Amino acid sequence: MQKGLFITFEGVDGCGKSTQIKKVAEYLEEKGLKVKILREPGGNHIGEKIREILLDTKNENLCIESELLLYLASRAQLVRQEIKNLLENGVTVLCDRFYDSTTAYQGYGRGLNIQLIESLNRFVTVEGKYAPDCTFFVDLTPKDAFERIDARGEEINRMEMADRHFFERVYQGFVDLSNKYPARICRVDGTKSIDMVFNDIMKKVNSILLIK
Amino acid sequence: MQKGLFITFEGVDGCGKSTQIKKVAEYLEEKGLKVKILREPGGNHIGEKIREILLDTKNENLCIESELLLYLASRAQLVRQEIKNLLENGVTVLCDRFYDSTTAYQGYGRGLNIQLIESLNRFVTVEGKYAPDCTFFVDLTPKDAFERIDARGEEINRMEMADRHFFERVYQGFVDLSNKYPARICRVDGTKSIDMVFNDIMKKVNSILLIK
Repeated sequence: MQKGLFITFEGVDGCGKSTQIKKVAEYLEEKGLKVKILREPGGNHIGEKIREILLDTKNENLCIESELLLYLASRAQLVRQEIKNLLENGVTVLCDRFYDSTTAYQGYGRGLNIQLIESLNRFVTVEGKYAPDCTFFVDLTPKDAFERIDARGEEINRMEMADRHFFERVYQGFVDLSNKYPARICRVDGTKSIDMVFNDIMKKVNSILLIK
Repeated sequence: MQKGLFITFEGVDGCGKSTQIKKVAEYLEEKGLKVKILREPGGNHIGEKIREILLDTKNENLCIESELLLYLASRAQLVRQEIKNLLENGVTVLCDRFYDSTTAYQGYGRGLNIQLIESLNRFVTVEGKYAPDCTFFVDLTPKDAFERIDARGEEINRMEMADRHFFERVYQGFVDLSNKYPARICRVDGTKSIDMVFNDIMKKVNSILLIK
């Protein structure tokens, strides 16, 4: 059986990637493909337990190194328990954030060693065997993303407001990654309308499906 | 204030390290030193939550990569939340297993990449800043350790019985590490009596205290 496609979606919060993932899933399902949308930490028991530690407000003294290792532990499990089987059964997997987010948030944002993070990204994906075939970086600056969230009247998280510099660094991380891996990471202009962004994404997805 | 000594104790289960740790702690306290015995995963809230995941029988499909990263996440937190403060306040820290166990169990035992584990050991100890000053490898082969446990009439864990080869590899890991880091790791003959092993350990501890 032909292995499924593994596509990930990256960008800062508010860039519109969740909307795009749903539209891509619908499009591919209409074409007769089996599709699964995943989100980290995954829906398995171990991922949920790790998620509890990461989100528990009692753990406000969780150090950034431990935070990094917990995200990676959850991803190692998600890859081996779910993604591997799905791809090997021909299912197309769409993942809302994956390892580029770790490089951008924990590496560029928190300042942890980027080379080490990239080695760990390979380690958790079975030496790259289950790395994404294609990644869409929905390019919207943190400033534009906040304005969009603001215009929708959604409440902006206090921590998000407080540390604009953090999100500027994260954004720069996604930009650098898309320049470093141009064959894998497709940068799409997130300032465009939902339909125009979707068109840009589908052009790339269709070209990959033709090659496969 | 003079930084406290950080001493770790390694070896296969049943080698007698817990007995030695207690004796060393008593000896150092009698000499007027402040001593803290630690065991991983540590007594802090985050370490306990990670421990629950590692020990929960519902998690029997926990992959070895995730297991490794969870141990490391727990250790990163223990180092920054406890060990760092203790050492900087002049407390001598005695730790029952530390990062050599990860190299021996997850690297040699489970077959994960040893070079990656050693990079991660540096990462979780703040680039080696809070690495052990001295490590005692209580050298008892798994065969001798099992016979000793057997003679005490303690029940041998089914998994322990089932995978003797695993414990042979772990033991070889400790042997290799003690050859690789002879200045830090002190190999003591675990077949000797409790008092004789303690004498060997104290000779080394006293020589370090004289240098400090």
